[in-house]
Amino acid sequence: MPVEVINLASKLSQFSEKWSPRIVAQLNDYHVKLAIIEGDFIWHNHPETDELFLVLEGSMVIHLRDEDIQLSSGELCIVPKGVDHKPAADSRCTIMLVEPIHTLNMGSVENERDASEGQWI
Amino acid sequence: MPVEVINLASKLSQFSEKWSPRIVAQLNDYHVKLAIIEGDFIWHNHPETDELFLVLEGSMVIHLRDEDIQLSSGELCIVPKGVDHKPAADSRCTIMLVEPIHTLNMGSVENERDASEGQWI
Repeated sequence: MPVEVINLASKLSQFSEKWSPRIVAQLNDYHVKLAIIEGDFIWHNHPETDELFLVLEGSMVIHLRDEDIQLSSGELCIVPKGVDHKPAADSRCTIMLVEPIHTLNMGSVENERDASEGQWI
Repeated sequence: MPVEVINLASKLSQFSEKWSPRIVAQLNDYHVKLAIIEGDFIWHNHPETDELFLVLEGSMVIHLRDEDIQLSSGELCIVPKGVDHKPAADSRCTIMLVEPIHTLNMGSVENERDASEGQWI
C-alpha cells in the first residue's frame, strides 16, 4: 500500500455538502474525516467513543449541556464518550475528526443527516 | 472531566526540545501529540501500529526505504505499521501525531532519543 500525501485543503475542495464528513485516511481502526459545517447540528452523543474535533478554518461552537466550547482555527478538543453535544457554526467552518471506524455521525440518534456509511474522498 | 480547548500554537510555545513529542490530548486509548522537529531522526518502525503525521508549520520529509514522502503545512500521511521510516526536516517544522498510548517514539529501536514515557503539556 503506497503512502499517500493527503492535502487537507485539496480534499475539502472536492465536496461542498455540509454536515457530511468524508473519510480521508485510516489509522489502524480509526478514520480521519473532514467536514464542512455551518448552522446547527443536532444533540447527540457517542456511547462508545470519544471524538476529536480540530478546526481547520473558521470557528465553531460545541454546545454541551452545561457549557459552550468555542473552537477556532488551530484548536482542538475531545468530546468524551457519552457526553451530549451539539456542534454549530455561525458561518462556514472546516474541521478534521478522528474517530473509530463505524462511528455514526449522529451517535445514538437516528436521523436523515446521519452519514453512517462514510464516503472516502 | 471538563472539555479543554487545546490551542496547538499555544501548546507548541511551551517547549522547545526537538524530537520530543508532548501529549496534548487523549482520544480513547490514543494520544494526540505535538512535536518540533529539525534535522534527521533515525530509521525505525512501529510493529504494532500505524502512525499519523500532520504538518502544522513548515515542511518535512518522511524517508521510506523506497521513496521520500514530502509533507508541507496542512498535509498529513499515515505510515503503516511495520514500515521503516526516517522523519527529517531541513528547518524547524511542527507536527501533530496521533498514535496509541504507549507507542514508543523510536518504535522497535532503543535509543537515548526515545521519549517513551510521554509528557503531558
